[in-house]
Amino acid sequence: MSSRPPSFYYPAPRKQRFCSQCGTPITCLTPPDDNRVRAVCEACGAVHYQNPRNVVGVLATWEDKILLCRRAIQPRRNKWTLPAGFMELGETTAQGAMRETQEEAGARIELGALYTIIDVPHVDQVHFFYLGRALSDELFPGPESTEAGFYHPQDIPWNDLAFRTVATTLQHYVEDARVGIFPVRHYAIPMPLSE
Amino acid sequence: MSSRPPSFYYPAPRKQRFCSQCGTPITCLTPPDDNRVRAVCEACGAVHYQNPRNVVGVLATWEDKILLCRRAIQPRRNKWTLPAGFMELGETTAQGAMRETQEEAGARIELGALYTIIDVPHVDQVHFFYLGRALSDELFPGPESTEAGFYHPQDIPWNDLAFRTVATTLQHYVEDARVGIFPVRHYAIPMPLSE
Repeated sequence: MSSRPPSFYYPAPRKQRFCSQCGTPITCLTPPDDNRVRAVCEACGAVHYQNPRNVVGVLATWEDKILLCRRAIQPRRNKWTLPAGFMELGETTAQGAMRETQEEAGARIELGALYTIIDVPHVDQVHFFYLGRALSDELFPGPESTEAGFYHPQDIPWNDLAFRTVATTLQHYVEDARVGIFPVRHYAIPMPLSE
Repeated sequence: MSSRPPSFYYPAPRKQRFCSQCGTPITCLTPPDDNRVRAVCEACGAVHYQNPRNVVGVLATWEDKILLCRRAIQPRRNKWTLPAGFMELGETTAQGAMRETQEEAGARIELGALYTIIDVPHVDQVHFFYLGRALSDELFPGPESTEAGFYHPQDIPWNDLAFRTVATTLQHYVEDARVGIFPVRHYAIPMPLSE
């Protein structure tokens, strides 16, 4: 066949229209022994679940500066972020956080403790940020970043941060750095603004 | 049509055979700007991601006893567990943990702090257990439990626990209860045994 492949788009919408197992159009109903409406296949019987996704990232430092990346992609293109992304199958949150730091900033780091765990229910996500220490100040930003650098706390672009989970993690860090103790922090981002 | 509906099975397998958006058979390839093989649709262009799932539960106490449920369903039928299950869309980890405790034990509880966060990469899961305090010792086990009860630490059926994340959470709790301090604990379950 000589037809051109389509432009790919990602991710596929959450809403499922066809059964992933047999290709039959989906029915929405509450399966037996369940208590909420699911995408089910009345042809093959598959019940399709949707679950929240995890985003994993790192707040890495070099001396007293913090690693930030500027996003080359949507959402929040040109806004600043901590390196972070969706956790993949087969990895731990720590491995995912290391991988994202490598992919987005090209940074060599030593991972520290899990620092913030943040529920973001309106976008069906949980975010995890680790602390980390850069092993050098050389950075090699990947295709998802237009630039990456280490910034003094007073130079954090607070009005140009991409996500509230990034902003609150940085706020906690700057505050905790004053006393030098970084307790695990767990909280939820409230609904109104989009994340 | 008079055809009988099929027996439902859940969850649908992770492996996707047809596009959820247009029903075309899936192709496995690495999309542009990506670095791993995905299930993609060469007809409509949808790129389908799979991500780890979160399991959320509670270690709830009544006086000095711990709430345990005996599983009525596979996997690990008849084994004992803390009330826990898959996090659903639109909820926080805390809300999911409360819901599972209600569904599996019918317990009225006051939720406490997040206690264990456990990576279980070989089954593509992250488990979260909260501490909690039962508001009464009345229990109404749901269809996923054959029984539920409050057990003294010395009566925990260590050899009949359903999951290693449950066993390790209980171990930490019993140890931490001796000093009365329950720090957040984050760790990974190593690969070999199945979870």
